[in-house]
Amino acid sequence: MYSVGIDFGTNTARAVVVDVATGEEIGTGIAAYRSGEKGVVVDDANPHVARHHPGNYAEVTRDSVRSALESAKHVRSFRVDAICGIGLDATASTPIPVSRGGVPLALTEEFAGSVDTLAWLWKDHSAVGEAEEITAVLRNRAPAVLDRIGGVYSSEWFWAKLLRFSRVAPGAFAATHSWIEVSDWFAAWLVGERDPNLMSRGICAAGHKALYDSEWNGFVPDDVVRAIDPALARIRETMRGKVRPPGSVVGMLSRENAEYLGVPAGIPVAVPVIDAHIGALGSGIETGRMVKIMGTSGVDLVVTSLADAPDTIPGVSGVVPHSVLPGFVTVEAGQSAVGDIYGWIVEQMRPTNESHESLTRDAERLRPGETGLLGLDWLNGNRTVLIDQRLSGLVVGLNLRTQPNHLYRSMIEATAFGSRVIIDRLSEFGVDVEEIVTSGGLPGRNSLVMQVFADVLERRLRIARSDQTAALGSAICAAAAADLVAGGRGDIQAAVQRMVGFRSERFSPIEDNVKVYRRLYALYRELHDAFGTTTYRGTLQHVMKDLLHIRSAVSS
Amino acid sequence: MYSVGIDFGTNTARAVVVDVATGEEIGTGIAAYRSGEKGVVVDDANPHVARHHPGNYAEVTRDSVRSALESAKHVRSFRVDAICGIGLDATASTPIPVSRGGVPLALTEEFAGSVDTLAWLWKDHSAVGEAEEITAVLRNRAPAVLDRIGGVYSSEWFWAKLLRFSRVAPGAFAATHSWIEVSDWFAAWLVGERDPNLMSRGICAAGHKALYDSEWNGFVPDDVVRAIDPALARIRETMRGKVRPPGSVVGMLSRENAEYLGVPAGIPVAVPVIDAHIGALGSGIETGRMVKIMGTSGVDLVVTSLADAPDTIPGVSGVVPHSVLPGFVTVEAGQSAVGDIYGWIVEQMRPTNESHESLTRDAERLRPGETGLLGLDWLNGNRTVLIDQRLSGLVVGLNLRTQPNHLYRSMIEATAFGSRVIIDRLSEFGVDVEEIVTSGGLPGRNSLVMQVFADVLERRLRIARSDQTAALGSAICAAAAADLVAGGRGDIQAAVQRMVGFRSERFSPIEDNVKVYRRLYALYRELHDAFGTTTYRGTLQHVMKDLLHIRSAVSS
Repeated sequence: MYSVGIDFGTNTARAVVVDVATGEEIGTGIAAYRSGEKGVVVDDANPHVARHHPGNYAEVTRDSVRSALESAKHVRSFRVDAICGIGLDATASTPIPVSRGGVPLALTEEFAGSVDTLAWLWKDHSAVGEAEEITAVLRNRAPAVLDRIGGVYSSEWFWAKLLRFSRVAPGAFAATHSWIEVSDWFAAWLVGERDPNLMSRGICAAGHKALYDSEWNGFVPDDVVRAIDPALARIRETMRGKVRPPGSVVGMLSRENAEYLGVPAGIPVAVPVIDAHIGALGSGIETGRMVKIMGTSGVDLVVTSLADAPDTIPGVSGVVPHSVLPGFVTVEAGQSAVGDIYGWIVEQMRPTNESHESLTRDAERLRPGETGLLGLDWLNGNRTVLIDQRLSGLVVGLNLRTQPNHLYRSMIEATAFGSRVIIDRLSEFGVDVEEIVTSGGLPGRNSLVMQVFADVLERRLRIARSDQTAALGSAICAAAAADLVAGGRGDIQAAVQRMVGFRSERFSPIEDNVKVYRRLYALYRELHDAFGTTTYRGTLQHVMKDLLHIRSAVSS
Repeated sequence: MYSVGIDFGTNTARAVVVDVATGEEIGTGIAAYRSGEKGVVVDDANPHVARHHPGNYAEVTRDSVRSALESAKHVRSFRVDAICGIGLDATASTPIPVSRGGVPLALTEEFAGSVDTLAWLWKDHSAVGEAEEITAVLRNRAPAVLDRIGGVYSSEWFWAKLLRFSRVAPGAFAATHSWIEVSDWFAAWLVGERDPNLMSRGICAAGHKALYDSEWNGFVPDDVVRAIDPALARIRETMRGKVRPPGSVVGMLSRENAEYLGVPAGIPVAVPVIDAHIGALGSGIETGRMVKIMGTSGVDLVVTSLADAPDTIPGVSGVVPHSVLPGFVTVEAGQSAVGDIYGWIVEQMRPTNESHESLTRDAERLRPGETGLLGLDWLNGNRTVLIDQRLSGLVVGLNLRTQPNHLYRSMIEATAFGSRVIIDRLSEFGVDVEEIVTSGGLPGRNSLVMQVFADVLERRLRIARSDQTAALGSAICAAAAADLVAGGRGDIQAAVQRMVGFRSERFSPIEDNVKVYRRLYALYRELHDAFGTTTYRGTLQHVMKDLLHIRSAVSS
């Protein structure tokens, strides 16, 4: 038996065919979106605009799935008939307006060519002002909910984008019946559901982006929506479809779409999940095991049982029940820049006579503390726990012998200290992290980064086996959905344990390094609090001297 | 009439022949020291050791003076007979041990080859521990004097080096009759004075480096010397020669030495002065006109009348009467690194695809505040006003678009802010700076640096005309000495006004830049106090945000 997972990324869509017994990925396919630049439609007049054309989704699904099936044929026993379910994930919040008949407005004659009716991609930041308005309303009317989303409603999220849409495109807004994540709409399309009022919605995007909250036992209520803007109330009215956890079933794949994709008709379509979150499933998330997605930026995901979960964790943006594992609360934190910072050093600060390789080698040869430097990793702001985009990077301890490899290593250390602040905050609120599984572009390529993180975080780091953890996660959800339809319990945790593996490399803390990093981390915390909070009142006069002491101690 | 000035630098000696009526340098000569590497004798076993061989001084004087005389012959009216005096300057404190007969121990058979008996060059840092001992004694017994030298007795100075010498070379110390600046010994040698007890000493080195102080009306008294180490008391006893201000006469050049140098016998030899200080004379120092020597590091010199002068200025290392202009107090401050920091950026942080020239051009094109960066210029510690070598450099405001030219400009700005702290401190204590004359390697070459300093310091900057301000200063002293001997008043200030000129370029503050730099300087002061003092108790949370505000304001 096999399941299919489809991951709608920002630039491409990827499909995998996975053995539900072992998690082996026997086939993979990739397809490019036809519209925009690398799939992203932009607006020359507004740099904040980033959109997806919803009309591309069927095509990329067909192309990536067919190509995955084709590549799966190298497994002799594989037959297309043995595919038992299909799951999908996408970026979020990436919503679209749909008509009364469930058609994306962008696909109607009237609004074809209107950028406003395309899917508002997660990284579209047009709605900064609207997000501030919503934050203000929530602060007055639902402070507990605001706390749970980290104290700030983001311009990347569902309601901010809707509010902005209603203002910049009043004509299209008037023709809009509902507003829905493009993935939820597409899942409904796959199963033939055409009534927006009945389209189910994934709890992951709903809970993390759209103010679906336990306080309200559902989406944000009418009076709060009206306080934001009365014009949105009629859209809120249409959001009546079931909100479902990962692994549950949206419906059965229609015959027409099954033929279009080349898979069996009548198999279950699992409810869509946010790509990062489903990637955590594909990385083996469980209580005590943080999944750390390390790429240009960083996302940390932890689950904890409903009983143990804190209501909110200050400075942590997402605390949402059922969003990754049913019965568990997901805690989401993140770092605004990780690999982007390393890339900045390599691209901008690499000297004339040094290759990228020798820079990395030289940074790796340095001992903890030997650089004499300490950095703040806020070159792209701070997402957790300060939630402040207007913070910036800092480096202290410079002298006339400071080299780019020193800077490089100190910035790797700074990102690890930033990660430690997050883990310490989780731990303060009872969410423990015993080990860490990493995924994303960095971990497999940079053993220096992995070792520094292990030493600073004082925890073992492993790397997820799959290179496509999101698509694998979707396939896991599809397998659970198929089990449910077949009369089983649809146990996602069991599917995760069966289908997820790790690479053989492990990175464990080295005791001598841990000792030095504890001293440096204490200094990092001081700079963190001095530049990031209004409560710090100490003197920093000892910081530069302590860095010299630490350096002398490790150099002797 | 012409005078000769000789400047004993670290790596070479330079001589100039100068017209005493106009200051025109009609001849110049340069000579390399025969010993050591570029003149500096080092010790492979001890990186702090840096020595000069006193035996080289006669040779380099002969070679540089003869070569200056030769090159002066292009002036048809010039005759060697018209040379009326000779002056000299050297680094300090650069002392040597001399025998009862006035012979440097290094030139005796017994101690030839002993590194310990060579001249302990200014930058020899062997005596760090001894300097701390002396600081402790002064703190107890002469706090006012300690304040006047800036609160710390330096390892670069006279008594620290003597104490160290007495301990590492007890045999040589036993054979030592006196301990004297190599320049004072050499001036005595030129005039044929062989009795160490009668050798006159320059007040400049005595006052700035050897605890010659108004509190004692002379050198540090016997009881304080004994508190430092009783072994030094007998050396103190020998320091009975006259301590003389610049422009005064050590004696007349002996016939033998006149023949050796190729100049008239019987002309006066002016008392030696520290190179940086005499360079201030050669740059036109007067009340209200700071001389700023900008090279790898920075030295600021100001004179103020004895009546107006404060006793001490906290954090300012030298407040010494008569040391540059008789009747005036010299205030000396400095920055531990200036050009060295720019060189560090250019050498270490210049990216693979950018030339030094384009880096500078790009930095020059940026407007004040546009980098979004703010630096602390302590990459080599802080000399004034914090007097703390264990401080280090810092930069804040980094983001993923920060480029090396941003870093370069921000570090130029940081050195200017560091200079402003000094000028503000002087002003607080009644020492006003109305304009600034620069000399050294940087000013003529880097108009970006000059304009930033003018904007930040809010004062006009000019550049001294001479490239050899120290040698010119020595020639000015020689002219004053000759005037004195001839029955005149030996007026140095008149000689300065006659003989010193400026280049035509002037750098005046630009109002728009001044406004931005005032805002940035306020932030610099906060970082300065937060990292450099123990008294700061504010929050720094606004710093990164203010940098963004300033950047937005100048970019719009």
